[in-house]
Amino acid sequence: MRMVDIIEKKRDGGVLTDEEIRFFIRGYVDGSIPDYQASAFAMAVLFRGMNPLETATLTDAMMHSGETIDLSDIPGVKVDKHSTGGVGDKTSLVLGPLVAACGAKLAKMSGRGLGHTGGTLDKMESVPGMRIALSEEEFKEQVRRIGIAIAGQTAELVPADKKLYALRDVTGTVESIPLIASSIMSKKLASGSDAILLDVKFGGGAFMKDIEHATLLAQTMVEIGKNLGRDTRAILTDMDQPLGLAVGNAVEVIEAVTTLQGNGPKDLEELCVKAGGILLTQAGIAASEKEGERRIEDAIRSGKGFEKLCEFFAAQGGDIRYLKDTSLFPRAQYVHEIRAKEEGFVSRIDCLAVGLSAMRLGAGRATLEDKIDMSAGIILKKKVGDSVKEGDVLCLALTNKEGVEDVFETLTDSFVLSKEKIERKPIVHRYIGRAL
Amino acid sequence: MRMVDIIEKKRDGGVLTDEEIRFFIRGYVDGSIPDYQASAFAMAVLFRGMNPLETATLTDAMMHSGETIDLSDIPGVKVDKHSTGGVGDKTSLVLGPLVAACGAKLAKMSGRGLGHTGGTLDKMESVPGMRIALSEEEFKEQVRRIGIAIAGQTAELVPADKKLYALRDVTGTVESIPLIASSIMSKKLASGSDAILLDVKFGGGAFMKDIEHATLLAQTMVEIGKNLGRDTRAILTDMDQPLGLAVGNAVEVIEAVTTLQGNGPKDLEELCVKAGGILLTQAGIAASEKEGERRIEDAIRSGKGFEKLCEFFAAQGGDIRYLKDTSLFPRAQYVHEIRAKEEGFVSRIDCLAVGLSAMRLGAGRATLEDKIDMSAGIILKKKVGDSVKEGDVLCLALTNKEGVEDVFETLTDSFVLSKEKIERKPIVHRYIGRAL
Repeated sequence: MRMVDIIEKKRDGGVLTDEEIRFFIRGYVDGSIPDYQASAFAMAVLFRGMNPLETATLTDAMMHSGETIDLSDIPGVKVDKHSTGGVGDKTSLVLGPLVAACGAKLAKMSGRGLGHTGGTLDKMESVPGMRIALSEEEFKEQVRRIGIAIAGQTAELVPADKKLYALRDVTGTVESIPLIASSIMSKKLASGSDAILLDVKFGGGAFMKDIEHATLLAQTMVEIGKNLGRDTRAILTDMDQPLGLAVGNAVEVIEAVTTLQGNGPKDLEELCVKAGGILLTQAGIAASEKEGERRIEDAIRSGKGFEKLCEFFAAQGGDIRYLKDTSLFPRAQYVHEIRAKEEGFVSRIDCLAVGLSAMRLGAGRATLEDKIDMSAGIILKKKVGDSVKEGDVLCLALTNKEGVEDVFETLTDSFVLSKEKIERKPIVHRYIGRAL
Repeated sequence: MRMVDIIEKKRDGGVLTDEEIRFFIRGYVDGSIPDYQASAFAMAVLFRGMNPLETATLTDAMMHSGETIDLSDIPGVKVDKHSTGGVGDKTSLVLGPLVAACGAKLAKMSGRGLGHTGGTLDKMESVPGMRIALSEEEFKEQVRRIGIAIAGQTAELVPADKKLYALRDVTGTVESIPLIASSIMSKKLASGSDAILLDVKFGGGAFMKDIEHATLLAQTMVEIGKNLGRDTRAILTDMDQPLGLAVGNAVEVIEAVTTLQGNGPKDLEELCVKAGGILLTQAGIAASEKEGERRIEDAIRSGKGFEKLCEFFAAQGGDIRYLKDTSLFPRAQYVHEIRAKEEGFVSRIDCLAVGLSAMRLGAGRATLEDKIDMSAGIILKKKVGDSVKEGDVLCLALTNKEGVEDVFETLTDSFVLSKEKIERKPIVHRYIGRAL
């Protein structure tokens, strides 16, 4: 078998066999297939696509290119939730404790933030003592005991994806649905959960610019799950504005706390209730999404979700006095009020601009080596649909930096105002409950 | 400027600027752009194409990636002729002396044979003493003095093409018209002639499988010439059978001699007359192709073409006693008669099979390191249109090897017989005299 023949077959619109796809992944990982053949192949896939079976096979081959986590010795259905990357997206810190409080087992490998999107692990580390590097045994023991663990990768998962993604990034081959879907799903499947809920974002700051592409990506991933025997579902949520009001690290943990205490922003709570309802049916705990949603709402009302958050942070070494009294978190030195220059209704808040602004204020990383300022960030004071008068505060910029006035300009401009009243839409635009 | 942006622009169907194309070629040659970006780019070009201006710019950038030959100090119009690769194609050895005998200046850089196609340089070397490595000064002096020189590259011409072609070969990106056209044309333009005639082959053993693709390639190259200010024309000839009767090295030189003496095979003579007529108009020697053809015919009849062949070979050190008495060439030890197993009319002779058979008999190279047996080859006894009876000799296989019986089988099968009478077609199917 020669890689050039596989490239040509795909280039000419052929359907690759199981053997051919595995030959590619195996050879690419062991170095016998060079980068220049892999990039030409990726470009051919970008133009020709892959059918559902090819995509599933690619995912499976990638998933098995390194270690995989085996959670089968933990009783019950282990669930996982993955977002394709949002701004102000602290969903895992709210949803995780809620589903665990309802009896589900959430075993989640998460990542660091880069560029305009934050990372759950960084946010967790704003609580002193919090450890995100758990051994596989610690990770599993914690899931078994308290129903939730969120940690960095405990093993060399999916080396094929690491290598291929780095290559795609510099060869114009990122934007291929089967390649994106297999990249995400191979990592999710390798981390061992039985059921996966994907939160696929679309809109300005998201990877998928419109709902059609986001739907296609979601369906492709749900189909992969079906082909590989894992219950995979997806919701589509828009990125017309950041999720909730807080964008940063400590501020997002604080917002997770208030949401679990029943005082969170509407859109974040709505998303957690919807997603939680689905996860509880996937875990076999609720008979329907509606019933699941009611249980999640109960876990907020009863305070059990917040208790689980504390238990979860404590298990990973976090000082939970910060959760119980959020005034303990260090405050940023400067709080700048960003004011509206005209009146209108907020029709959109540019997530990319807000995310990059938060990064500039110190809350994120431009490169993986940058250090994060846990107290920096942005607090939105207006959301889509709100009416704004000239001079009203649109948001607060929290920072320890000086000389970042250009960021304030960007933030002002990131609020798009309309003369007409804007109707608020539900946060979840679509739910893909099973493969088509 | 970043290569990834150029790849994405082409991938999305954009038209590249002059600056972008030159950035790519410059960076690829100096190593700052890696193979994996070049191969992804080539695949994007394969799918999206390039417009005539992009293709011309790419050709120009490649042409200037290394040294170029300056023939401007040789008086008159310097012409060049290039074939996209045939079997039994000794055209240059007949056509070159003919146009030089008529007063044109043919300055041709040629190549070695590889795989199923032979190389003019190898054929020339079947004459003892013949030197194909000329210095640039020797090359130019010879063209100035006797009107013809055919030699190996005298300088590092078009390093971009060497590097890019080797990459395309292993990444499934060979079959792109703008990439093929710029590869051929950059080398032709770098070798300095004022006017170029391209012989674009099509059919079974050719790179272009049908006349439509061959026409597109020819038009693209003619257009490049127009955009870069060189008179470029093309003829389309089929590869439904080898050209002439001889396939090999010494046997092809012998056939060139007999053709120049007026006793050559019909198709070869016809091609040389047609192509010569065009070249003489390009050189400004004939007012029309018809007039040019008459002059070429005269040069055959008068023996002036043969005289020029001898002068040309003598100038490069060749022992021209071999040309004047071709019985001096060493003969192969074995001459196998390949006979028809059934009767019919020859409808096609598989060029790929015949070319590979000649290689197997010793006349060609499987890899660049292989040594050639100058006396080996094939002599066709039947051509397309001929009627064949069972037991008739189809061709002779000349070899010094034993144990090549499987080649004889291949040769028998390479003659495709039809029950119906086959009409002979003219060798030149189309003439593209100017850019559209």
